[in-house]
Amino acid sequence: MSKTNSGNFFEDFSLGQVIRHATPRTITEGDVALYGALYGSRFAVQSADTFAEAIGYDRAPVDDLLVFHVVFGKTVPDISLNAIANLGYAGGRFLAPVYPGDTLNAVSEVIGLRENSNGQSGVVYVRSTGFNQDGIEVLDYVRWVMVRKRDPKTPARESHVPSLPSVLAADALGDAVPPLDIDAWRFDLSGSPHRFSDYAVGEKIDHVDGMTVEEAEHMLATRLYQNTAKVHFNQFTEGQGRFGRRLIYGGHVISLARALSFNGLANAFHVAGINGGRHVSPLFAGLTVFAWSEVLEAQEISGRDDVGALRLRTIATKDRPCADFPFKPGEDYDPSVILDLDYWVLIPR
Amino acid sequence: MSKTNSGNFFEDFSLGQVIRHATPRTITEGDVALYGALYGSRFAVQSADTFAEAIGYDRAPVDDLLVFHVVFGKTVPDISLNAIANLGYAGGRFLAPVYPGDTLNAVSEVIGLRENSNGQSGVVYVRSTGFNQDGIEVLDYVRWVMVRKRDPKTPARESHVPSLPSVLAADALGDAVPPLDIDAWRFDLSGSPHRFSDYAVGEKIDHVDGMTVEEAEHMLATRLYQNTAKVHFNQFTEGQGRFGRRLIYGGHVISLARALSFNGLANAFHVAGINGGRHVSPLFAGLTVFAWSEVLEAQEISGRDDVGALRLRTIATKDRPCADFPFKPGEDYDPSVILDLDYWVLIPR
Amino acid sequence: MSKTNSGNFFEDFSLGQVIRHATPRTITEGDVALYGALYGSRFAVQSADTFAEAIGYDRAPVDDLLVFHVVFGKTVPDISLNAIANLGYAGGRFLAPVYPGDTLNAVSEVIGLRENSNGQSGVVYVRSTGFNQDGIEVLDYVRWVMVRKRDPKTPARESHVPSLPSVLAADALGDAVPPLDIDAWRFDLSGSPHRFSDYAVGEKIDHVDGMTVEEAEHMLATRLYQNTAKVHFNQFTEGQGRFGRRLIYGGHVISLARALSFNGLANAFHVAGINGGRHVSPLFAGLTVFAWSEVLEAQEISGRDDVGALRLRTIATKDRPCADFPFKPGEDYDPSVILDLDYWVLIPR
Repeated sequence: MSKTNSGNFFEDFSLGQVIRHATPRTITEGDVALYGALYGSRFAVQSADTFAEAIGYDRAPVDDLLVFHVVFGKTVPDISLNAIANLGYAGGRFLAPVYPGDTLNAVSEVIGLRENSNGQSGVVYVRSTGFNQDGIEVLDYVRWVMVRKRDPKTPARESHVPSLPSVLAADALGDAVPPLDIDAWRFDLSGSPHRFSDYAVGEKIDHVDGMTVEEAEHMLATRLYQNTAKVHFNQFTEGQGRFGRRLIYGGHVISLARALSFNGLANAFHVAGINGGRHVSPLFAGLTVFAWSEVLEAQEISGRDDVGALRLRTIATKDRPCADFPFKPGEDYDPSVILDLDYWVLIPR
Repeated sequence: MSKTNSGNFFEDFSLGQVIRHATPRTITEGDVALYGALYGSRFAVQSADTFAEAIGYDRAPVDDLLVFHVVFGKTVPDISLNAIANLGYAGGRFLAPVYPGDTLNAVSEVIGLRENSNGQSGVVYVRSTGFNQDGIEVLDYVRWVMVRKRDPKTPARESHVPSLPSVLAADALGDAVPPLDIDAWRFDLSGSPHRFSDYAVGEKIDHVDGMTVEEAEHMLATRLYQNTAKVHFNQFTEGQGRFGRRLIYGGHVISLARALSFNGLANAFHVAGINGGRHVSPLFAGLTVFAWSEVLEAQEISGRDDVGALRLRTIATKDRPCADFPFKPGEDYDPSVILDLDYWVLIPR
Repeated sequence: MSKTNSGNFFEDFSLGQVIRHATPRTITEGDVALYGALYGSRFAVQSADTFAEAIGYDRAPVDDLLVFHVVFGKTVPDISLNAIANLGYAGGRFLAPVYPGDTLNAVSEVIGLRENSNGQSGVVYVRSTGFNQDGIEVLDYVRWVMVRKRDPKTPARESHVPSLPSVLAADALGDAVPPLDIDAWRFDLSGSPHRFSDYAVGEKIDHVDGMTVEEAEHMLATRLYQNTAKVHFNQFTEGQGRFGRRLIYGGHVISLARALSFNGLANAFHVAGINGGRHVSPLFAGLTVFAWSEVLEAQEISGRDDVGALRLRTIATKDRPCADFPFKPGEDYDPSVILDLDYWVLIPR
């Protein structure tokens, strides 16, 4: 038995299989500081204990996407070390606040398997769940990845493709947000006067600013998440590969786009759900990321008069400003588009 | 009303206007660690709780310049997003110690306005004040910036140029330093035997070491401070601009020079006041920063027998060692000079 | 008397001399987070308070090598600022756990001196000891460095070469590890099922993954350790030197190799002793580090039935994968080899 982990191949997965992932991780103020320095996020709830406490949090919660990346990172050695491509996300929900000092671990269940007709690979669907030290679920999401077969001659198995929600219902959102006292929300300190009711369905917002990415930055980030996917770190091997470059972790782009979105969405303090996402094309170091968002839906949440939910589509591009909102549904993506993310954010009503 | 912040133009400022800046920020041990890794500072008071507690602090205080950069960063979206140049600083005082866990926010008052004769821009003078979570002032300083007009045809307004101190009085210094027990100051642990009385006015000190700056480093630093000035981050746009490069935040140079100054000023543990400063020329990634200092004044502080004040002029250069102390007052700056900073430090008597 | 530290020269050292090094340093969760992001280490004991507490630690201890680098860094200004080469290590023992909040300082004793026959330099042997805030020893190790003479005409002194252990006895190990409850060790969470008894003497393990190093990363790391050795930071000077490049701190390579070794040694949670180490050739930014290990010994520790000791030789290379285990004792090193480290790790029995 080899001591090193060569990852799971398509044949190693079975429907209903439950995988407990290695390396629990205590999230600290150090992680929060580093996350801030990597993306420059300015949402007041995550930036200031005082702001968070005034509205009803115990203290400033950990950024939702830092939680996502840490949980995602744990799944990589078991799920996607032999992945050819990360195909999609669905039904990502943030279920409890995470504070510095909490320890996260992750479990995945195989909920679907479909071998590709070429016999070389197959698609694995997993629902991954992040737990804190008390066993409370803090996040769950589905992703599906194309994984190599160990041996193309292994006979194909029966396929099972799970039915997945294309959009989370608004009433499924908000479990990670305590009841908030919006009277205590200081709109002068949060960076914008705009509330839930100020955003209209169909509204498009250019987030204006651009952020260039360096190799050191995306590698620091991806190691912070203990994500071990080889393509992000190894120039010796990647230099001989298809792109000749290290690939930047797709989640790094999501966090960059989220941080850029502060300019236009400053009060949208919480990523409450991820409906779907596509890493349309790869990002490499030296390129500059821009982003714009469209409001797809604006929904109240039953039983909550503190916050409402905006469903956003955020498009991120490389080396292309977004003042003219590149990409229209139904058209091909502009070659500059790197991310197409459909998600819910919460914002004070 | 646009959802994105396009910053204020010269016409948007009025004398006496008070601007409360967005995004309060809790400073944590994580920020302190990252600040340390970015500059390599070794002053014992900020490095070790034990050292700080022995002499009278509650614990190791946050580096003065980290406090400065965080407060400064908050002012950028409102004051200098449309700035053509950051022209100067005056009267910067550190007023209370800041410890990890404190939350900073910032307010600026417009204290001067002067339109340029070309009608294209004007100079805005602001006094910015940083507060902690208890409303205690921790820092205030004046800076003036040249800001674009929205419309050159806007009629010029009456000018008001505030009178500013060229040098802070020594007795105005030290509010951020509790009474110290200098008998408990371990000169073997602080890195130098030299006290207040060992420094002579006119003495010049070459700080010897050089530090090369990488793009990832200055961007991590500037995002850590939540400073959103576009020129530091966006190679796509800056690549088409005057320098073809991202400009490094001037405060990054100040912190580098301060960290280099440990070699020669190891006991000068506290930056107590900023009399003035000029970013003489821009710094770009790949260049190496050197620094030297001259002692301009040595002053006792009324009522304090624990510490004395040294007024320093620190000159930082790029790609030029400072053994021969480049720059003489009255001469033009050597093209290598990037910073000319006039400030007060405190040091045990 | 110059205010700046020009470091000690060979003549400045005397046998029995004790040097208390400057700048005590409180290790925080921030340092731990940054260390994690720099290397991507995934050992569960250091990653999660829950995991560490379950087996008997107060909380997650600070990574052993972070402790080593911080203590080492303190010695640089006094011991190796004028070093020509760092020649070797011996007898490095970790003596007490270090937790966030502990403050480290360091003392060195000169235990050997030997002038080189050319009269230009000599070898200085020091035993350096790291202490925490309670005066408890947390680490000691011997290193020897070749140091320039201030003046080649200074007459040679009597030589004293200390006798040093080539290998620490297993019974000397483990002081930094409290008695552990191995029944509480969750092998599903630690990343591997392999225990002490699963490793055989002579077994070779390729750690598979490669990690490319960027300038920003090694400089952040080396400043985090407050290590001031000039060759790591100053491209202006190094660009004119022998390699034309900044040299990467050898300890950075050790930490990279240790993090890579998780893949194959996931339960080897503690570096308990450093028998010897050689930085075979320099590493530069842009190159990719690989590593493999051989089990040299497997020893029980008297009085402990919780953990056993594996003596490892870890070889790190640059731009060369290690599937064929480059380097055989008795042969010349492959030009790709950068590190040959002989050390003890502890692992559950």
